[in-house]
Amino acid sequence: MRWHKISDAVVRRLPLYLRVLEEASRDEDKQLMSSQELGDRAGVAPALVRKDLAWFGEFGKQGVGYQVDYLKTELRRILNLDREIRVGLVGVGALGHALVRYHRIRSMRNSSFHINLIALFDNDPAKFGEHVVDLEIWPLELLAEKIKALKLEIIIVTVPAAHAQEVVDLAVAAGIKAILNFAPVKLTVPEGVHLANADLSLELQRLAYYLNE
Amino acid sequence: MRWHKISDAVVRRLPLYLRVLEEASRDEDKQLMSSQELGDRAGVAPALVRKDLAWFGEFGKQGVGYQVDYLKTELRRILNLDREIRVGLVGVGALGHALVRYHRIRSMRNSSFHINLIALFDNDPAKFGEHVVDLEIWPLELLAEKIKALKLEIIIVTVPAAHAQEVVDLAVAAGIKAILNFAPVKLTVPEGVHLANADLSLELQRLAYYLNE
Repeated sequence: MRWHKISDAVVRRLPLYLRVLEEASRDEDKQLMSSQELGDRAGVAPALVRKDLAWFGEFGKQGVGYQVDYLKTELRRILNLDREIRVGLVGVGALGHALVRYHRIRSMRNSSFHINLIALFDNDPAKFGEHVVDLEIWPLELLAEKIKALKLEIIIVTVPAAHAQEVVDLAVAAGIKAILNFAPVKLTVPEGVHLANADLSLELQRLAYYLNE
Repeated sequence: MRWHKISDAVVRRLPLYLRVLEEASRDEDKQLMSSQELGDRAGVAPALVRKDLAWFGEFGKQGVGYQVDYLKTELRRILNLDREIRVGLVGVGALGHALVRYHRIRSMRNSSFHINLIALFDNDPAKFGEHVVDLEIWPLELLAEKIKALKLEIIIVTVPAAHAQEVVDLAVAAGIKAILNFAPVKLTVPEGVHLANADLSLELQRLAYYLNE
């Protein structure tokens, strides 16, 4: 069962809530948390926390708060984080390289999630067979084949802007439903495919709001 | 004048609205836009668009929509994007390198904003004096001095997790009020300093929601 009308803005906050709950449960052995506290820790207004979570069921009790373990399990299930999700990365330039190192090292330290980056692709023959941390770089030509064989579900795109659409089209044709794009270009995907743009500029613009306070 | 009670979630959406308006005005010479259309293009529910913008004034007319140019100017002003904002980056490893290249090349192409990355720092003497695109790498020891002399307002932190807090403390002591952190670690900043965490893991967790629909 999926909830088709949930807005992206709501979905964007769910991993934040989950992280707060994971930390509170791991570091403080916390059993109950009010929407006020969950909101404060996640940087979201408590009323919005209650509204967001209400889309998915009745998790909290008035005056008691949320049961940390239960809500954590439910959020994991809602986010599909109760199973392994396999990720590929296309474009092992400076940014791709950095992301692989970051992600592989993090996931070695924190095994509580199962979003695993397991395949790297590039179109530069000089890189084929090279390793980043423990992952080999494969030719872009193998992308479609590997997506199917390895059951990759998410593709991270770190190719130059001019090649990004082409890579996305290849991945979508091979069955990919979720894409995290770092190329500074607006991409088109068919209905049913979800595209997220990781954009440094937007982050900086948002931070600028807080200057001059 | 600032609006102290605006939640981070609202602020997070403002640059998205601004980008939609910029694109519509540049590519389509659009004069008016309904909250429905603005919401569709930004991936936000129209009711939320209206609610977000209402925090800052009365920008739209019922049945007519928003005046693109006026709202664009106002959002720029609200976000402090009507003036130059100077940014420094600390930690020119693989990720830092990639971000500098990405940002410098983008800002050369798109000069409509004035968020300028103008200073790089590292603690590795082997890198001192090296250039990334057109920027020289300075010793970390100069951070406080350069923050003041160059009036840097935002610091991007791409140092290893173990050094991030130390760098942030140095920057905050020198007057920095906004930090974009890429180090995979939870940092502490004093009241009045705004910390944003750019986190690949959160993006991937969010995308996982859309799998299996």
